Amino acid sequence: MALTKEEIAAYFEKLQTSICSQLEAADGKGKFRSDHWQRTEGGGGNSRIIEKGQIIEKGGVNFSAVHGPTPENILKALGLDKADFYATGVSIVQHPHNPRVPIIHMNVRYFEMSSGSWWFGGGIDLTPHYIDEGQASWFHRQLKKACDLHDVSYYPAFKKWADDYFFLKHRNETRGVGGIFFDRLGSDKGAKEQLFSFVKSVGETFAPVYTHLMQLNSTKAFGDKEKQWQQLRRGRYVEFNLVWDKGTRFGLDTNGRTESILMSLPPQANWQYNYEPEEGSEEWETLDKLKKDIDWLNKK
Amino acid sequence: MALTKEEIAAYFEKLQTSICSQLEAADGKGKFRSDHWQRTEGGGGNSRIIEKGQIIEKGGVNFSAVHGPTPENILKALGLDKADFYATGVSIVQHPHNPRVPIIHMNVRYFEMSSGSWWFGGGIDLTPHYIDEGQASWFHRQLKKACDLHDVSYYPAFKKWADDYFFLKHRNETRGVGGIFFDRLGSDKGAKEQLFSFVKSVGETFAPVYTHLMQLNSTKAFGDKEKQWQQLRRGRYVEFNLVWDKGTRFGLDTNGRTESILMSLPPQANWQYNYEPEEGSEEWETLDKLKKDIDWLNKK
Repeated sequence: MALTKEEIAAYFEKLQTSICSQLEAADGKGKFRSDHWQRTEGGGGNSRIIEKGQIIEKGGVNFSAVHGPTPENILKALGLDKADFYATGVSIVQHPHNPRVPIIHMNVRYFEMSSGSWWFGGGIDLTPHYIDEGQASWFHRQLKKACDLHDVSYYPAFKKWADDYFFLKHRNETRGVGGIFFDRLGSDKGAKEQLFSFVKSVGETFAPVYTHLMQLNSTKAFGDKEKQWQQLRRGRYVEFNLVWDKGTRFGLDTNGRTESILMSLPPQANWQYNYEPEEGSEEWETLDKLKKDIDWLNKK
Repeated sequence: MALTKEEIAAYFEKLQTSICSQLEAADGKGKFRSDHWQRTEGGGGNSRIIEKGQIIEKGGVNFSAVHGPTPENILKALGLDKADFYATGVSIVQHPHNPRVPIIHMNVRYFEMSSGSWWFGGGIDLTPHYIDEGQASWFHRQLKKACDLHDVSYYPAFKKWADDYFFLKHRNETRGVGGIFFDRLGSDKGAKEQLFSFVKSVGETFAPVYTHLMQLNSTKAFGDKEKQWQQLRRGRYVEFNLVWDKGTRFGLDTNGRTESILMSLPPQANWQYNYEPEEGSEEWETLDKLKKDIDWLNKK
């Protein structure tokens, strides 16, 4: 029996539940609430939101499975003829209280056209307010492990793709230490079962990796200076999501569910004109590492 | 003698100085600092920034006069052949401390192509955190006065244009109570001297109008509730500027001076998932008025 879109969606929905449980257990206080929504044109979703946890200040773990006539601008962008579409996925962003805990993002998604084509996409990337090279390296090694189980060419290709995607052109700065990003993994890239198996590994890597980083960092001391810096870095996160993130912009432009899309925004963000950290400071050192093509795997 | 681009730029630069002086006088504490910058491809500007004033928490009054080969994407957007361009203008955004003082934006600009075409653009719009109908009406009456001195068809046309432009499609909400917006006022719309005279009236309306609103509102009491609401409304301001504002997006995409472009962002903005003010509350009443096509002129 061929793998169906309903089976993929059912897996994504279970993944959402599993991730929420693992994050709640690691947080120790915050609970995800559920917001079920329907899409007029077909399908719907469940936005699960956590606010004012012990470690997580604001975060979302969204599941959706939507379908209907494909919007004109997608057809145009993809060079496809008029057809119905089906899209399902899980999207996550977590903003922690403690500036020593990194922001994280994960997405896994499946797209299918009534005309027969289908593909997977997704990624995980890490945005530390303060870069800890050892942790960034550890993070990349976990992603490489998940990739290598399926295809050793994946990690290097998708790591580069993440560097290029999670990039603030107007700041000449990466969003964080990157991770992996992939899209249009369709029939020309492998069997559906095989690609789905890779996407599952990505999805299941998220919670153990992030809960480990929560545990490592959430009891570290911080003061006003670190908190101020975190708010400025969150400002950059807002800039990336609203200016460059294709998924966000596409959703806002095509009557997507705004509150689910913008769950990625932080609880607070600050902007200060032309702020530059003192040369040699920890903040300056972080900025200095927000670059493409750093070989994080081999940092100590 | 025909009016030259240099004369227009010289006027804009003087307008910047005059507006900064009037805002400083009204604020009573904050001082604008100057950041002169050069553009590699030609021209430059002077960004004047105020932070932590008594009334204004963060604001900018930017002047620029830039020129050089026209970027490919402008040529394409305007349907023009390869040519050099010259652009000069003043751009202003002010974010006050007190949630009872509205955010304001003003822009006046002149654009000229080496191939001979030229036009003016600009606008003023007001974004109250709490809408005071009487003040919104007064604000529109001042804009109408400035318009009517030149052409009685301007105010209704440019008021409608502002309603359409300062609109958050993904929220189905206007940015504030609108104002006026106009673009491509070129030779088909009047003599250059005549259109410039209108643009001057717009530029010179800004300071008396905003300093009056500062004076009226800056000593009003407010607490945490009003401050929280202000931060959420500032979040919407960020969303408009980064997602919908054509000037901002164009600047970020064409290697403009990022810090000058993003001076429009507030010192702080907050996001809370699916926040809805209590029905009948003052916050709810403000949301209820963030609509197009309100006849502000005739509100009391």
